[in-house]
Amino acid sequence: MASFLITGCSRGFGLALTRELASRPVSEVSKVFATARGDSPALIEVAKASSGRVELIKLDVTDQASIKKAAVEVQGKLGDKGLDVLINNAGVCQYVSAGVKSMDNLQDSFNINVMGVHWTTQAFLPLLQKGNLKKVANITTNFGSISLAPAVHYLPAPAYKISKAALHALTVQYALDHGDEGFSFVALCPGWLKTELGGGDMADLTPEVGAKASLDIIFKPNSETNGKMPKVLVKGWETKGHCYDGTNVPW
Amino acid sequence: MASFLITGCSRGFGLALTRELASRPVSEVSKVFATARGDSPALIEVAKASSGRVELIKLDVTDQASIKKAAVEVQGKLGDKGLDVLINNAGVCQYVSAGVKSMDNLQDSFNINVMGVHWTTQAFLPLLQKGNLKKVANITTNFGSISLAPAVHYLPAPAYKISKAALHALTVQYALDHGDEGFSFVALCPGWLKTELGGGDMADLTPEVGAKASLDIIFKPNSETNGKMPKVLVKGWETKGHCYDGTNVPW
Ligand SMILES: NC(=O)c1ccc[n+]([C@@H]2O[C@H](COP(=O)([O-])OP(=O)(O)OC[C@H]3O[C@@H](n4cnc5c(N)ncnc54)[C@H](OP(=O)(O)O)[C@@H]3O)[C@@H](O)[C@H]2O)c1
Ligand SMILES: NC(=O)c1ccc[n+]([C@@H]2O[C@H](COP(=O)([O-])OP(=O)(O)OC[C@H]3O[C@@H](n4cnc5c(N)ncnc54)[C@H](OP(=O)(O)O)[C@@H]3O)[C@@H](O)[C@H]2O)c1
Repeated sequence: MASFLITGCSRGFGLALTRELASRPVSEVSKVFATARGDSPALIEVAKASSGRVELIKLDVTDQASIKKAAVEVQGKLGDKGLDVLINNAGVCQYVSAGVKSMDNLQDSFNINVMGVHWTTQAFLPLLQKGNLKKVANITTNFGSISLAPAVHYLPAPAYKISKAALHALTVQYALDHGDEGFSFVALCPGWLKTELGGGDMADLTPEVGAKASLDIIFKPNSETNGKMPKVLVKGWETKGHCYDGTNVPW
Repeated sequence: MASFLITGCSRGFGLALTRELASRPVSEVSKVFATARGDSPALIEVAKASSGRVELIKLDVTDQASIKKAAVEVQGKLGDKGLDVLINNAGVCQYVSAGVKSMDNLQDSFNINVMGVHWTTQAFLPLLQKGNLKKVANITTNFGSISLAPAVHYLPAPAYKISKAALHALTVQYALDHGDEGFSFVALCPGWLKTELGGGDMADLTPEVGAKASLDIIFKPNSETNGKMPKVLVKGWETKGHCYDGTNVPW
């Protein structure tokens, strides 16, 4: 009977997470607040088929007013209840043409991938504190690991890597502040997914497989995941692709 | 015969670095471009006593036009020569009153501590590529280590920690892109210093001691420091205070 709020549900991984949650029994998932900044026919479809369990909410993670408005709306719909799980999923991967010296999109990446997560978390924290599960998953990537940077130097997306490293530091600050209250703040690596951001079919996993495996991590005991950066565990992929073996990625 | 450019020289560590360099023989230090966003009587004093070796340049690291103007000015003064060493020192440490959830200064910290370093590096890279030593030191702190975050949770400065973690990721991107050209991009921890930012007298080291020990790191072979985060080595402090034993801090 858990309630979820997800950002960036118009397409890709956020849409897959919404679909996966909607497919689960009411005993497990009572409500999904699927947020997006624009209209998405695919998401509307999922909501329509959900008998009211999936609620669509407008939320642009770079716009604090829009986040606060969404929080008031969600609070109204929850009534006395709290929110159980927040999934900060909205994100961008921005590229450069001539190395980090030509990077002109770092501020933009910071705004969406870091400030967006911070502002959304700030706004929904009071509702999460009233909730039973106290889980916040910040969706990230091993490309944001500073330790692994030499191994993924080939991807010309420094602003993505740097902003996700900052997201990891943010996640750990929340984990340290709120772990004692029973929270888990986890930086979750869903794997290389066949989405627009992931570059489509050449990626390792379908968003559906990534969504199921990510929920496995989210449903672990909070003390196991708080302040960590786990990769998903996918059977058959432990030593293939980016090695989805469920281990924690180093910072 | 090396030329240096330092940001944030009005006071604190930047001023101490300028003083230390000005005290060294011309055979070692030919020119110090000491930059600051405002006027600083202490810095003017150092320049006056330097027989023209210390040149004052206006540079606000959050203002791209000011950085570009400074780069043109420095290029004019260097003539055919390149710049040998860039020290990105300007920085702020911003606090919160009620934990990371109350953090309202992260964008500001990103702008000064990360974007400022990126813009300054971008602007001076052509001059550094013409230089002989090819050294860029980004001044940082072990408080920005995500791995060490639990140990330094007591300091209520999440924006400082998060922005310096992002600075580390930026430093590594430059290190990976330009290491083959012979560059060192190092994230350098000068120790806890008795400056305004350091909280004054309760800190471990004088800025003078920190400056000497930091220059020891900067003068190491570039291949030893590129893409690393070394702490200074200070005799007698290897196991005292924050342990200045010259080792690399984990990300
Ligand atoms: N795909 C991968 O291989 C992979 C791997 C590791 C981690 N991730 C992470 O997974 C997350 C989702 O990625 P994806 O692959 O699903 O990417 P995607 O297909 O490009 O979808 C990105 C989603 O983020 C939304 N978004 C962007 N800016 C937003 C804003 N300002 N406010 C609200 N929503 C915004 C987009 O909405 P619009 O439709 O309105 O643009 C879209 O719904 C990202 O955080 C990404 O870093 C992906
Ligand atoms: N003190 C420590 O214990 C310690 C430890 C580790 C690392 N560090 C790092 O060392 C560096 C210097 O710190 P500090 O201790 O010397 O601090 P400080 O005494 O507060 O001095 C900060 C310097 O940065 C300058 N600055 C700030 N914003 C600027 C901008 N937008 N453009 C240009 N200059 C700007 C200040 O200039 P104004 O006078 O104009 O404000 C000042 O010169 C920082 O990067 C800090 O993170 C310090």
